[in-house]
Amino acid sequence: MSEVKKIIECVPNFSEGRDLDKIEKIVNPFRGKDGVKLLDYQRDEDHNRLVVTVVGEPEAVKKAVIEAIGVSTELIDLRVHEGQHPRMGACDVVPFIPIKNVSVEEAIELANETAKELSEKYSLPIFMYEKAAKNPQRENLANVRKGEFEGMAQKMSQPEWAPDYGPASVHPSAGATAVGVRMPLVAFNVNLGTDNLEIANKIAKNVRFIGGGLRFCKAMGVELKERGIVQISMNMTDYTKTALYRAYELVKIEAKRYGVSAVGTEIIGLVPMEALIDTAVYYMGIEDFSMDQVLETRIME
Amino acid sequence: MSEVKKIIECVPNFSEGRDLDKIEKIVNPFRGKDGVKLLDYQRDEDHNRLVVTVVGEPEAVKKAVIEAIGVSTELIDLRVHEGQHPRMGACDVVPFIPIKNVSVEEAIELANETAKELSEKYSLPIFMYEKAAKNPQRENLANVRKGEFEGMAQKMSQPEWAPDYGPASVHPSAGATAVGVRMPLVAFNVNLGTDNLEIANKIAKNVRFIGGGLRFCKAMGVELKERGIVQISMNMTDYTKTALYRAYELVKIEAKRYGVSAVGTEIIGLVPMEALIDTAVYYMGIEDFSMDQVLETRIME
Repeated sequence: MSEVKKIIECVPNFSEGRDLDKIEKIVNPFRGKDGVKLLDYQRDEDHNRLVVTVVGEPEAVKKAVIEAIGVSTELIDLRVHEGQHPRMGACDVVPFIPIKNVSVEEAIELANETAKELSEKYSLPIFMYEKAAKNPQRENLANVRKGEFEGMAQKMSQPEWAPDYGPASVHPSAGATAVGVRMPLVAFNVNLGTDNLEIANKIAKNVRFIGGGLRFCKAMGVELKERGIVQISMNMTDYTKTALYRAYELVKIEAKRYGVSAVGTEIIGLVPMEALIDTAVYYMGIEDFSMDQVLETRIME
Repeated sequence: MSEVKKIIECVPNFSEGRDLDKIEKIVNPFRGKDGVKLLDYQRDEDHNRLVVTVVGEPEAVKKAVIEAIGVSTELIDLRVHEGQHPRMGACDVVPFIPIKNVSVEEAIELANETAKELSEKYSLPIFMYEKAAKNPQRENLANVRKGEFEGMAQKMSQPEWAPDYGPASVHPSAGATAVGVRMPLVAFNVNLGTDNLEIANKIAKNVRFIGGGLRFCKAMGVELKERGIVQISMNMTDYTKTALYRAYELVKIEAKRYGVSAVGTEIIGLVPMEALIDTAVYYMGIEDFSMDQVLETRIME
């Protein structure tokens, strides 16, 4: 009975974590706009970095992101920037994340429109990364950012590192920006009934993608010293394909080899409702369930 | 960073399931209003009844509901109404259901304001029922409605059946209306690997409240003839207190006595996300989880 509402998330990272006045100016374009909701912004002084989380209608979010990046280009000078976090631009990375009624393809289109406009408006060189990468070498953000601001001029002089949009040279003060598309990350940890970190590391190796485990799962062993236990700390990079319950059950299966059990789990930060509802549907064997049966899905339409 | 948004649901039932023109006129006040979202309306010709589901901001929903009841009072004449469903009024029942950031107490206050205004505007006698009942005899809607429209004049002549608001006599054409507050219902069924209805009935008796089972669970055995199995068909009347997983696990435990297993479950119609997220949190043992970590909760704020 009502129009389908599209929701996208964007989490631009800016290279300013100390000057509160500048931070407010960069965040301001996300305030008081129809179709744009500022969910969160967190600055880190050591990293000297600002992470903004915004959701809303694709066009409105795109516009606000471009405006904020314009502000950051004026206010941040990478030539005098220092911080612990690797960075190559005043606005360093701009991931778009499809949330509701937005396909990955649509998100990639939006990312490209954003990149094109950024390059034209602010003379910024733009690299497309992750699901928006135009070649496999650029899928991994770490590859794109390698060399950071200080090494970017030389890197971009190589033909294989020509930017996807904008000038073939670094912006003198604002560097270069990576624009991409990724699925929502879910930080999901499983606590084990042992203090043996070696066991946790072995389990982590077996469940994660690079060790032969689940396709969209990164994992490592972590010590929780104050509790005297260890943890499998996981980043689920696409819960729509690698479900949370699958990682949980697999950790338990691997832990059995060492006579160790799971004693609890944690979800750190935000999680899309579908990741948990999918898990409930699995454990209770709910037949023919549709996300349209979720009241909140209907309210948000 | 943003104001807390309150969401209430209302499911008014009107005694008109046949005349499409009248139905559209009754539903119209729920359309095109800020803060009011018409989720669904379903008419039943045999019942000669219309069930409207609307959500939104409490004040806006209240106003729209009062307007629609005004229309129904003009269009529906109980003296010529026939249908299979018991009814006592043109607008028969008006349950308010707290959905988000609304306490039961706030919903009860809203229900009372609605009742008062309905009685004053349209000279309707109003009975408060379920969680809004002013005495225990009126908690059960069936008690309140007993006698139906035709017997209401005589019933209301007894002092113990004086209405909570409005005149002590039936409205000549629109009868009387029950206004109440209840929690969202979840229709949750567990399918069993047997065709023995007797077993299903015995299990249903043990898990439901009246048989000594779970406080907010109604249950009965049902045959699914085309599949050759039986089902425990349950109405979960307060999932915040009697969780879905508890009913599911208890059905399995009772079924064990007969050597029968659960072969699947069903959720019929709408379900609040919290009912399923709570279930996921239980099965994976997620520690310290808060509904504020759910992305959609934040988007809806």
